[in-house]
Amino acid sequence: MNGAESLARTLVASGVEVCFTNPGTSEMHFVAALDRVAEMRCVLALFEGVVTGAADGYARMAGKPAGTLLHLGPGFSNGLANLHNASRARVPIVNIVGDHASYHKRYDAPLTSDIETLARQYSAWLRTSMRAADVGRDGAEAIAAARRAPGIATLILPADTAWSEGGSIAAALPVIAPPLPAETTVEHVAAMLRSDKSAAIILAGNALFGPGLDSAGRIAAATGATLFSPYSTARIARGSGRAIVERVPYVVEQAVERMKDFRQIILVGTAAPVNFFAYPGRPSVPTSPDCEIYSLARPGEDLAGALAALADALGARRVEPRLYKPERGAAPGGAISLHGLAATVGALLPEGVIVVDESITSGRGMMAASRGAPPHDWLTNTGGSIGIGMPLAVGAAIASPGRPVLCLEADGSGMYTPQALWTMARESLDITVVIFANRAYQILKGEYANVGAGNMGPRALDMLEIGRPDLDWIALARGQGVPATRIADLDAFANALRAGLSSSGPKLIEVPL
Amino acid sequence: MNGAESLARTLVASGVEVCFTNPGTSEMHFVAALDRVAEMRCVLALFEGVVTGAADGYARMAGKPAGTLLHLGPGFSNGLANLHNASRARVPIVNIVGDHASYHKRYDAPLTSDIETLARQYSAWLRTSMRAADVGRDGAEAIAAARRAPGIATLILPADTAWSEGGSIAAALPVIAPPLPAETTVEHVAAMLRSDKSAAIILAGNALFGPGLDSAGRIAAATGATLFSPYSTARIARGSGRAIVERVPYVVEQAVERMKDFRQIILVGTAAPVNFFAYPGRPSVPTSPDCEIYSLARPGEDLAGALAALADALGARRVEPRLYKPERGAAPGGAISLHGLAATVGALLPEGVIVVDESITSGRGMMAASRGAPPHDWLTNTGGSIGIGMPLAVGAAIASPGRPVLCLEADGSGMYTPQALWTMARESLDITVVIFANRAYQILKGEYANVGAGNMGPRALDMLEIGRPDLDWIALARGQGVPATRIADLDAFANALRAGLSSSGPKLIEVPL
Repeated sequence: MNGAESLARTLVASGVEVCFTNPGTSEMHFVAALDRVAEMRCVLALFEGVVTGAADGYARMAGKPAGTLLHLGPGFSNGLANLHNASRARVPIVNIVGDHASYHKRYDAPLTSDIETLARQYSAWLRTSMRAADVGRDGAEAIAAARRAPGIATLILPADTAWSEGGSIAAALPVIAPPLPAETTVEHVAAMLRSDKSAAIILAGNALFGPGLDSAGRIAAATGATLFSPYSTARIARGSGRAIVERVPYVVEQAVERMKDFRQIILVGTAAPVNFFAYPGRPSVPTSPDCEIYSLARPGEDLAGALAALADALGARRVEPRLYKPERGAAPGGAISLHGLAATVGALLPEGVIVVDESITSGRGMMAASRGAPPHDWLTNTGGSIGIGMPLAVGAAIASPGRPVLCLEADGSGMYTPQALWTMARESLDITVVIFANRAYQILKGEYANVGAGNMGPRALDMLEIGRPDLDWIALARGQGVPATRIADLDAFANALRAGLSSSGPKLIEVPL
Repeated sequence: MNGAESLARTLVASGVEVCFTNPGTSEMHFVAALDRVAEMRCVLALFEGVVTGAADGYARMAGKPAGTLLHLGPGFSNGLANLHNASRARVPIVNIVGDHASYHKRYDAPLTSDIETLARQYSAWLRTSMRAADVGRDGAEAIAAARRAPGIATLILPADTAWSEGGSIAAALPVIAPPLPAETTVEHVAAMLRSDKSAAIILAGNALFGPGLDSAGRIAAATGATLFSPYSTARIARGSGRAIVERVPYVVEQAVERMKDFRQIILVGTAAPVNFFAYPGRPSVPTSPDCEIYSLARPGEDLAGALAALADALGARRVEPRLYKPERGAAPGGAISLHGLAATVGALLPEGVIVVDESITSGRGMMAASRGAPPHDWLTNTGGSIGIGMPLAVGAAIASPGRPVLCLEADGSGMYTPQALWTMARESLDITVVIFANRAYQILKGEYANVGAGNMGPRALDMLEIGRPDLDWIALARGQGVPATRIADLDAFANALRAGLSSSGPKLIEVPL
């Protein structure tokens, strides 16, 4: 067995069942190996940013890593921006990056680069496999490391390691359970929450769904603490019957205003809140200087377990949590407005839908309008590098067969990775993409003012507006095999949304703003 | 004056007249500065790979750097693959990369990354400007360094450096002339070429156009040496009246066969030839072990001067060079074939056209078919990272007003940076894009066999074919404002090509294969 096949079979043996791929010459032996390993689902993308964003979306919903297959340093580079986002989402991913044959590297052929240096920043685990005999073991370690962190493991596979004989399949390594925080930490947090100081609890990771969120809801009800998520979350369970969780606002003034009265903040799987950007004369953080910030559990620790222990310490296990009630209005109809679009989405979300939200300014009202919808999951851009929405939807759909996916996408963001539409079509994924076509980097118009850059002249405006020519998303979608429709009012939007969410295969709805 | 404005005005003072941009919040003060500096042409792209590829194309034709404006580490990452190609083209580029305000970095906000580590590999010059007072000087040094290498200079501009007062415009630094090789080196090469050993001269950089190519042609005629270019070249002057230059073949067997009889190879601005990839049981280089390889001038030295000195040493200054004769057939018409497409292109190229060739397997016959066409320039992918063609065409067109650009693009490669079409439309660039739609990564089918990966099953084929669904390039182009037509035979191709090359603004022609 050659190295490539030993790696493919090791991935499967460790539970990696999906590989998102964009291969080149140096990966042909791994492609040949995948050809023989039917247990692995291979999903081709036409651009590497789709590959890595899809792996992120898959991990968020499946709770385990997919593989990626990337071509040398430049192919890896094309996937980097969404690996940045994935590293901030703290999800497991196993990258397989082909490299030149080891003996060919010294000739500095045109595609030669230093992949390890490119990969180090976002890789919790990084190794170049130098012998076919090692690659199975290296693969098993990569998977275990990705699960444990959780984070990104990158295995560089030189072509001669892939094609040489002597490979052997490695058994799955034991999955090490994440550690619980110390009892003293739990007791300290319990004491803080028993005090009469106003408290916020900021939840991330798997504290935002399942048992972790359930415990957090009970703790909040027992202590009066307010539950928050960071502005960006890898995955949050929302809708009726789920614990009430606020989002730390993006806009600095709003965040400062919301956080100013809390005297203590408990962190669960996240760092202290920080503003997305710095602005002249404004603080870097939204919290007040006299607020005590204390971490119950760090990323990589057992967040759900920590919250269960805290609930026990507080005697809150059987306290009724405050939950969102099932309530929503009818779809409003009429002329297009951001408020009306949000109300329509809120009115029509079906139970179990996975919402991928990269709607930026257009979607600011979406979460408020959908809190009483049937139970669903909500995924956002965790690292701020736009162009993750549609790739994330691809991965989420592949991880969650039978669940519809709604991708709320801004037109500017969508143009970073439009190739995701093609993969949606090829794989017949049940994704409804809504494009909010305001024909501008609308958020930057606000940011231009926020940073005090003065009055905007026509040349600056030209760099922030993406009309002239207008993008025709109907054409862009159909050109990649995705049926598409442009809506003229909220009634048409509701009809298109209903149709998209209830039918199979991808659809795109362009909303002109 | 703030740091941002001092930088914008310094760029202009040093002759940087074009800035390809994809900005974000941290670059808003630089955008505001550009708004006030009318001497700078700002060109927006919807994806950073277009930004960096366009800067490469601009530099290849203008012979001087453009600026790029990129948003933090992830924006820079999206531009990396084409910076890989640009570093191999050895062209000057000045990257301006925004970063968080210096005091905001320690909070590790979502978009924080280590930009210097990402940038180091491809940057001949790299600096983070820490004070507004420094940024003008840093900018002038960046430009001088980019010109001198020639290569990529990356200046990281923290937001507070940009917005703080105290900036001052730096005067252009003197452009240091590249050094000539030592006289003894020239004499040694002259002696080699006077011997009766068969000789090849491999030219790169500006040895492939203008006075350098002219001298090379005379040297070849005087000595019987054969002129070559590497398989990939940043820019080569071709067509009738230009010196005859062969291309080292891509396919290993062909390269080995062509190079095997040369006993000495003279390098002018390039490294010894190396095969693009390694293949089991085949050599890494196409040259025979007993071939003497000697460098007349290294990259960064004065290649044209070195060739002029060599011509003098050989008494070849007035020797008539062997030039391509003006000869070409009529456009053939009839059914589509790769041979017929190449013949049609060869028959119709107008004088002065700039051909950007990323046609991969479909275009293998293009150069042979066009050698007798009127004088023109030919640009190819120098680093092997596909997705450079259309961005390169954008930059070449902006550098060369009045000259038509023909972009020969493979469908697989084109899908890495399809956003370039939008910039072509916005800037009304005279570019005709021909998409060779074979609906496969055709080259990989060959490589799969070449690396000995065995028989291809349906799962492997699925990763190498990009049909299912077929891409509709007419829709993809129109969706971004570029008129497009699909041709059914060579007569229609000739008509569309004539129309595209003789009219203003961008056009796209899809050639189904």
